[in-house]
Amino acid sequence: MTVRIGVIGTGMIGRDHTRRIQQVLAGAEVVALSDYNPEAARAVQADLAPGAKVYERGEDLVAAGDVDAVLICSTGSTHEQYVLAAIAAGKPCFCEKPLATTAEGALRIVDAEVAHGSRLVQVGFMRRYDAGYRMLKQAVDSEIGAPLMVHAAHRNPSVPEQYVTPMAIHDTLIHEIDVFRWLLDDDYISAQVVFPRKSGHAHDKVADPQIVLLETAKGVRIDVEIFVNCRYGYDIQCQVVGEEGLANLPDPMAVTLRREARLQSGIMTDWKDRFIDSYDVELHDFIIAAAKGTAAGPTSWDGYVAAISSDACVEAQQKSGQIVPISLPDRPALYDRG
Amino acid sequence: MTVRIGVIGTGMIGRDHTRRIQQVLAGAEVVALSDYNPEAARAVQADLAPGAKVYERGEDLVAAGDVDAVLICSTGSTHEQYVLAAIAAGKPCFCEKPLATTAEGALRIVDAEVAHGSRLVQVGFMRRYDAGYRMLKQAVDSEIGAPLMVHAAHRNPSVPEQYVTPMAIHDTLIHEIDVFRWLLDDDYISAQVVFPRKSGHAHDKVADPQIVLLETAKGVRIDVEIFVNCRYGYDIQCQVVGEEGLANLPDPMAVTLRREARLQSGIMTDWKDRFIDSYDVELHDFIIAAAKGTAAGPTSWDGYVAAISSDACVEAQQKSGQIVPISLPDRPALYDRG
Amino acid sequence: MTVRIGVIGTGMIGRDHTRRIQQVLAGAEVVALSDYNPEAARAVQADLAPGAKVYERGEDLVAAGDVDAVLICSTGSTHEQYVLAAIAAGKPCFCEKPLATTAEGALRIVDAEVAHGSRLVQVGFMRRYDAGYRMLKQAVDSEIGAPLMVHAAHRNPSVPEQYVTPMAIHDTLIHEIDVFRWLLDDDYISAQVVFPRKSGHAHDKVADPQIVLLETAKGVRIDVEIFVNCRYGYDIQCQVVGEEGLANLPDPMAVTLRREARLQSGIMTDWKDRFIDSYDVELHDFIIAAAKGTAAGPTSWDGYVAAISSDACVEAQQKSGQIVPISLPDRPALYDRG
Amino acid sequence: MTVRIGVIGTGMIGRDHTRRIQQVLAGAEVVALSDYNPEAARAVQADLAPGAKVYERGEDLVAAGDVDAVLICSTGSTHEQYVLAAIAAGKPCFCEKPLATTAEGALRIVDAEVAHGSRLVQVGFMRRYDAGYRMLKQAVDSEIGAPLMVHAAHRNPSVPEQYVTPMAIHDTLIHEIDVFRWLLDDDYISAQVVFPRKSGHAHDKVADPQIVLLETAKGVRIDVEIFVNCRYGYDIQCQVVGEEGLANLPDPMAVTLRREARLQSGIMTDWKDRFIDSYDVELHDFIIAAAKGTAAGPTSWDGYVAAISSDACVEAQQKSGQIVPISLPDRPALYDRG
Ligand SMILES: [Mg+2]
Ligand SMILES: [Mg+2]
Ligand SMILES: [Mg+2]
Ligand SMILES: [Mg+2]
Repeated sequence: MTVRIGVIGTGMIGRDHTRRIQQVLAGAEVVALSDYNPEAARAVQADLAPGAKVYERGEDLVAAGDVDAVLICSTGSTHEQYVLAAIAAGKPCFCEKPLATTAEGALRIVDAEVAHGSRLVQVGFMRRYDAGYRMLKQAVDSEIGAPLMVHAAHRNPSVPEQYVTPMAIHDTLIHEIDVFRWLLDDDYISAQVVFPRKSGHAHDKVADPQIVLLETAKGVRIDVEIFVNCRYGYDIQCQVVGEEGLANLPDPMAVTLRREARLQSGIMTDWKDRFIDSYDVELHDFIIAAAKGTAAGPTSWDGYVAAISSDACVEAQQKSGQIVPISLPDRPALYDRG
Repeated sequence: MTVRIGVIGTGMIGRDHTRRIQQVLAGAEVVALSDYNPEAARAVQADLAPGAKVYERGEDLVAAGDVDAVLICSTGSTHEQYVLAAIAAGKPCFCEKPLATTAEGALRIVDAEVAHGSRLVQVGFMRRYDAGYRMLKQAVDSEIGAPLMVHAAHRNPSVPEQYVTPMAIHDTLIHEIDVFRWLLDDDYISAQVVFPRKSGHAHDKVADPQIVLLETAKGVRIDVEIFVNCRYGYDIQCQVVGEEGLANLPDPMAVTLRREARLQSGIMTDWKDRFIDSYDVELHDFIIAAAKGTAAGPTSWDGYVAAISSDACVEAQQKSGQIVPISLPDRPALYDRG
Repeated sequence: MTVRIGVIGTGMIGRDHTRRIQQVLAGAEVVALSDYNPEAARAVQADLAPGAKVYERGEDLVAAGDVDAVLICSTGSTHEQYVLAAIAAGKPCFCEKPLATTAEGALRIVDAEVAHGSRLVQVGFMRRYDAGYRMLKQAVDSEIGAPLMVHAAHRNPSVPEQYVTPMAIHDTLIHEIDVFRWLLDDDYISAQVVFPRKSGHAHDKVADPQIVLLETAKGVRIDVEIFVNCRYGYDIQCQVVGEEGLANLPDPMAVTLRREARLQSGIMTDWKDRFIDSYDVELHDFIIAAAKGTAAGPTSWDGYVAAISSDACVEAQQKSGQIVPISLPDRPALYDRG
Repeated sequence: MTVRIGVIGTGMIGRDHTRRIQQVLAGAEVVALSDYNPEAARAVQADLAPGAKVYERGEDLVAAGDVDAVLICSTGSTHEQYVLAAIAAGKPCFCEKPLATTAEGALRIVDAEVAHGSRLVQVGFMRRYDAGYRMLKQAVDSEIGAPLMVHAAHRNPSVPEQYVTPMAIHDTLIHEIDVFRWLLDDDYISAQVVFPRKSGHAHDKVADPQIVLLETAKGVRIDVEIFVNCRYGYDIQCQVVGEEGLANLPDPMAVTLRREARLQSGIMTDWKDRFIDSYDVELHDFIIAAAKGTAAGPTSWDGYVAAISSDACVEAQQKSGQIVPISLPDRPALYDRG
């Protein structure tokens, strides 16, 4: 059975997911497209999905009888409404992060899905599908004993002028916030942010670097360096220290050269290259679950917890050096981990 | 357009390629299956391709009107006949290695394809599609100057009793024979084999390890250690030394652990894991070309040259220590490299 | 000219330094020995320095006419008195850490040396002489731009029952406290200690692991994991993040093995092996300076600042999570850095 | 007891050894110097050993009553006569390589030492004292089972015009020739040399790179790449493949940097830096043995075997591609390995 997919939002990521479904992955085809700018939707139709129908309104796409499942790739502020529409229609939907722009909005989605009674929503936290993180999780689960600490870094070569301090949480740390919960099977109970000496390469409106210190319910201490003007590359580091040993996230595979008095290997500079393969895997997971009328991978609850946790981190930025508590409501049984 | 594929030979690799087309890759579906054991074909039909038709004879599958392209995964001695049938039918075909069991047979295929006038055959040398070798080729082409030497190793933990000395060439070195030609854009002019002290873990009928020394038309010297009872893992190493520097084939990505007084990372032990991703990529390449009625990737000529070169290496085994010349006829224009 | 050295304290380290001077290093000989247990001194005399004279009192050794310079290797609580005696006698002295057991005691030494008017004291912070840290300092000074952060770890496989929480500062972190000041050419202005989930391998009286967060006058943020029951090895890690790039302390040289499905190299388990070479280098530096009647390397001031900074870290342990300020008096001109 | 040493030949290496004895190592002092250019000897006397006596003739230095042991650092063609003089005088001597310029000359030294009845000669093959090779030997002896193959490389960035093809053996490979015998506890039985495509950076009189293939009595196969215009650095590689696994010579310790889109660490470019520490260790070994009136480390026999083996490799260069046998007389009992 081929899953018939409607894509809402045909910007960079919506176009790329359409290409993925049409040209790379088995099991699905794009039959509907929608964008607030209909020309954009029609351009994707022309280039990648000539058989797809273009809808003016996302809600109409969700409701269409030949649409089995929905991809939400529109601007963040519209995510909540389309996810709620998909849940109302009982259709599986994949929603790019953030699930909603507020924790309250995310909670409304959780409530709707719980009311529906089975999973319909997958949130686009693609790192859980990265081969490196999967290897790391396997090592954490089987090789190093109980995790005690995580040392991590999220570095970008540079950021544009519109990147301001809170975006270090909402746009950058958000990936670590989700993936560490999954990696450790744990939740956060406090956050603290400290600001080292600012890099001379950081522009006026961003404090850079930052160090975020998180504490989990099980007592794990996490330090994450966020450094978005590090110059040298896009570099994601993660080391988990357990009772019996340590495990490191592998660096991306690279040729080792001996050249010009240097033993050297390339470091990526464009974030788009780093987790490119995991987008294929997450959508493949979505297609398989959608064919059964349900959803897999990161849940609405994960999206909600990410929102709560990010809000605390932003507060911790504002209260530089102070420890900000994080508390969560009880997790609905729908989201019990396997 | 979906490419309708017929699969001849539904053993381990035929079944796996069928799964790949049905469940992983966009753009193709398996519509026909054939095996000398019809039960095997029907089992794959039941598990993976319920819509496919089962043929008793491979030739009938090739001839079927709804089969656009053919995958030849049957036993090696039957490859030649099915490839010739596909060429006669003007249908793209993917043929697992070897293209034929003799150089003469491979040359008959080359001649038939040349007579046809355009490419129809892709040979299953999957290493050319491996991400690591592709990175290495890019480095060889742009970072290290003219290649002068290659130091390589092909190691297996162990081999069964039926693995005898010439299989070190036909089953093991064959991958290096193809991939180094592609990596260096070069051909072999001589081979020499020397036999180190035999490992105590090697059984009676196999000389192990062996070192194969190849010389290319451009003067590159290649040494390949073949060690099929190395115990510690399945390990493929390749270092290219050029006028300006060196490049190494990357090891597969692995978590680095610090545990039990060892900095350590896992080495694969099963060859099936090592190039698993490249099978997807080679078939994706086949599907794209087949949709246009042609073939891409390793050619019939490559299959023929691999046969000639392997024969020389086996002769060099028999004449331990002696240098055996390798000569090729002129390459037909059809196989000019881009 | 051969420097004639008297050694006070002939326990493990005093015996080893005597061996070093007698059997390894040019330029000095041990002419006098003293220990609160005269038998111990006589045993070292018999084994390593038959020509040396044994003194009952360290003060008499310091005063002896044929003693040019003094090594103080006795128990920590006696360091201050012997250093002050050496300064009073105008003789160069090498003092194992700690310089004194209190910051006040260390300040008395600083005052005495300043009153003397030239350097006479070298403190035994041997890491500054380690080849790896020296390479790192060179990289920090020339390759990575202004330092912004340091991520470090100090791990021991296990500690005995008598190792209690404050010893994580006084006996373990003390090395980082000194070497980071030297590495960064900077001083601390605050300390914070957080306690992750305790390792099941840690005994009752030690909170383990701990994370110490230090802030420097220049704004560098340092995080040091102290984990003295890490099981897997004695492991010292240090990464400096600068405006232009990162530099890592090299791991000790080790053979890389491929064995038993693991790419592996050994990690040391005994701290005594880790900086063994640096003891030779620090004493060589002492001998060269002592031949000129002065001292080189880590100063009394460094010993004093280490004491002040450690005290703050112990207070930060006691005030778990709180930030404790660190302030220093002005540095006497005698200790201006080159 | 201090060993009183006479140094014959005060060029670069003789001066450096004099510095080592005077300023670095315990247990010895330079009391005599000689050079065919007496001004050179007097300059070293003035700079490093004011108490030493300068002799016009090396033989007189050897004979001097206050000289306990001799260092022979003069030009290679004079080594044999001075070593024979030292043996005649019954004095330990350290001789820089080569022991003699012909195998016959080396054999005369062996015969003289055997006639003397105990060891007096240490040959300056310093790699046996390198920490990396020592680690590798330990791994070879205990971790990888019986050695079967060695893959090695000896690379220099460039060589001067006077470096001609045979020097690749006598000046470059000579170190591998000795150190592999020690590493494997084995001897060579044949040599073959093949010439890859020549590097465009090699001048007219040197074939570069070369690959030397050696076979040992135990059946180990060794391939050594010699590449003296490799451009990128001075790089010594050695991998030993055994029945149970592999071991690699460690690269020199270096800081790992992340900078300019490269994970990188420095490679040495000057050969003088690579084994600098091993010179200290070999002379320390000489001093300790000389204090007992004997010699340790590489023997006269090792020097003789190196000469025989090099001669065969040069013949193998001249007979490009042909296998040249190597045979040795029986080893005198004086040189039985511990
Ligand atoms: Mg699809
Ligand atoms: Mg398909
Ligand atoms: Mg000494
Ligand atoms: Mg000396």
